Amino acid sequence: MLHAVIMAGGSGTRFWPASRNACPKQFLKMGGEQTLIQSTARRIGGLVPDENMLIVTNERLIPLVKQQLPQLKPANLIGEPCKRDTAPCVALAAAIALHHDPEAIQVVMPSDHVIQTDADFQKGIQFAAQLVEADPGQIVTFGIRPSYPSSAFGYIHKDTTAPLTADGFDVSAFQVKQFKEKPTVDVAQSYLESGEYYWNAGIFVWKARTIMDAMETYAAEMMPPIHKIAEAIGTDRFDAVLQEQFPLINGKSIDYAVMEHYKNVAVVEAPFAWDDVGNWTSLARLVPADDAGNSAAGQHLPIDTSNCIVQCEDEHIVVTVGLNDVIVVQTNDATLVADRNQEEAIRQVVQKLKDSNLDKYL
Amino acid sequence: MLHAVIMAGGSGTRFWPASRNACPKQFLKMGGEQTLIQSTARRIGGLVPDENMLIVTNERLIPLVKQQLPQLKPANLIGEPCKRDTAPCVALAAAIALHHDPEAIQVVMPSDHVIQTDADFQKGIQFAAQLVEADPGQIVTFGIRPSYPSSAFGYIHKDTTAPLTADGFDVSAFQVKQFKEKPTVDVAQSYLESGEYYWNAGIFVWKARTIMDAMETYAAEMMPPIHKIAEAIGTDRFDAVLQEQFPLINGKSIDYAVMEHYKNVAVVEAPFAWDDVGNWTSLARLVPADDAGNSAAGQHLPIDTSNCIVQCEDEHIVVTVGLNDVIVVQTNDATLVADRNQEEAIRQVVQKLKDSNLDKYL
Repeated sequence: MLHAVIMAGGSGTRFWPASRNACPKQFLKMGGEQTLIQSTARRIGGLVPDENMLIVTNERLIPLVKQQLPQLKPANLIGEPCKRDTAPCVALAAAIALHHDPEAIQVVMPSDHVIQTDADFQKGIQFAAQLVEADPGQIVTFGIRPSYPSSAFGYIHKDTTAPLTADGFDVSAFQVKQFKEKPTVDVAQSYLESGEYYWNAGIFVWKARTIMDAMETYAAEMMPPIHKIAEAIGTDRFDAVLQEQFPLINGKSIDYAVMEHYKNVAVVEAPFAWDDVGNWTSLARLVPADDAGNSAAGQHLPIDTSNCIVQCEDEHIVVTVGLNDVIVVQTNDATLVADRNQEEAIRQVVQKLKDSNLDKYL
Repeated sequence: MLHAVIMAGGSGTRFWPASRNACPKQFLKMGGEQTLIQSTARRIGGLVPDENMLIVTNERLIPLVKQQLPQLKPANLIGEPCKRDTAPCVALAAAIALHHDPEAIQVVMPSDHVIQTDADFQKGIQFAAQLVEADPGQIVTFGIRPSYPSSAFGYIHKDTTAPLTADGFDVSAFQVKQFKEKPTVDVAQSYLESGEYYWNAGIFVWKARTIMDAMETYAAEMMPPIHKIAEAIGTDRFDAVLQEQFPLINGKSIDYAVMEHYKNVAVVEAPFAWDDVGNWTSLARLVPADDAGNSAAGQHLPIDTSNCIVQCEDEHIVVTVGLNDVIVVQTNDATLVADRNQEEAIRQVVQKLKDSNLDKYL
């Protein structure tokens, strides 16, 4: 049976002021009709029944999840008491799936990406699930064919000599040679030119048993608290044990903890359009631009304005005069106006607000 | 007895979105602690008792005047049913003053300028009143020594051969040779170099009788409706007659209707600091700038930002990243972001909003 884990603990600091501590990026529409987490749940919901879907997020965001995904039961929402990166999240979700279904195959995915279309995504997942059924010890990940030498993504080096297939699917897949951490732009350029590297989309398909065993092998030090929490699944002690044990874990990313070490990993070339919506420029890719290159989510009146990105609340209007390459993001209590060519500096905003004792705007 | 007329009918379109149809510039703080009209009333209030103070504005703005100047009685607030420029306003105010005091000396002034200090202003007004008492047929206006060749102001050509004085006052004044309409920059440059021209501050001191007679002489066609309204002053027919007669007037500015023709005009060199706050750059002059030249009325967190002008509401924050020479004005329902070097284009905003059926934001 297919199970799903939607990881929704991100803080989305690059999208301040749209993204806030109290409402990070995955809970925003980002130019679409549904929020990113709603779209994610809808997309995997075509393959996985609600009772097999887990949302793992920070405990303070649980009310927001309930509001945006009211179809899910409280037991399907896991609130982490603190940030511990993705490996503990993955292990906890695997323990929960195993509690209900020792043969569970899990689809693990971020909550804050834009993927089109649902049908293409589901085809990719079904293909990956078939690979896992054929080889239960295999971990399947998804690779995105790079379109530019990005230094913002991890990469996956495919073994071109080891293609993988499944009956009835016209999808490319390979054994993985190696996971690569975020490279420099020069290295990324060489990856791009080689044609042997994918961007790591952070989407995984595996048997819950397999990733649990892999965690025992490669991240054993994280597991005692996970075991204690696992023993409380389905009891009224669960919340208390989670509160007590989860913070004790010395967390790492699942890539770093397991993927870089595990030997039997496949990469499926994503048969769907993917965008991690990593910055405002990527949002501009998702919203149709006017003739002057302006992309707006919300009302924008451009006067002598080109290549600007505007986002504002319903009923608000942003008027720009004589601007080029500027990002304007309006919210109820905070507005960002930034040079589009200084996206990296936007990442400093959250820190600068902290430094200036302006935490109320975080 | 000294009377005051505060003209508050302006629409302040250059300050959209801070200035709106429902709340034009004179009702805004524009970087100060009080609104411009409150400051104006306080400034002249040092010389004129409340019962001698008239506010003339558009009728729909009367509630705002009541809110900002609660000390004034309803009879001191005149709501024009439509825009008819300044001459009808002046004639109506003169008729009201004469109704109460045939010897009234009036100080007539705009509601939307910044003047410092109150004491210097009051000294200038007292000097002007003394000139009028000495020569009751004289109209006194105020001139600002130009600091640059502005094409945005009318000018006053002083007669350097005819200085005027009053006992106990160390203030310069001259007979006026001629009023000049807004010049080209080249002509303004020649005015500046000659040293014989002032900017026309639009502040007048005169006997109500004198301006009434001058209107009869130079703007007779406007007067029949004024007389009908004047006959109703102090009766319960006043509002109805004002509603009926005022729109019949073919209005002009007082400069164009009278000042350019009247022979006995004096100009007092303003012994006070004056700013018409005509655009956002002038607002920047009124608000202290940080080391990078950024002026902010409201919370502004500048990151790699210089020479920007920011205005936002209480509790809101504007964060700017990598900007230079940009104006950001945030309000509840509309935000303007504009190149500071394209101030003239900002004047188009209101028209563009109309053209785009976005009147709700005007």
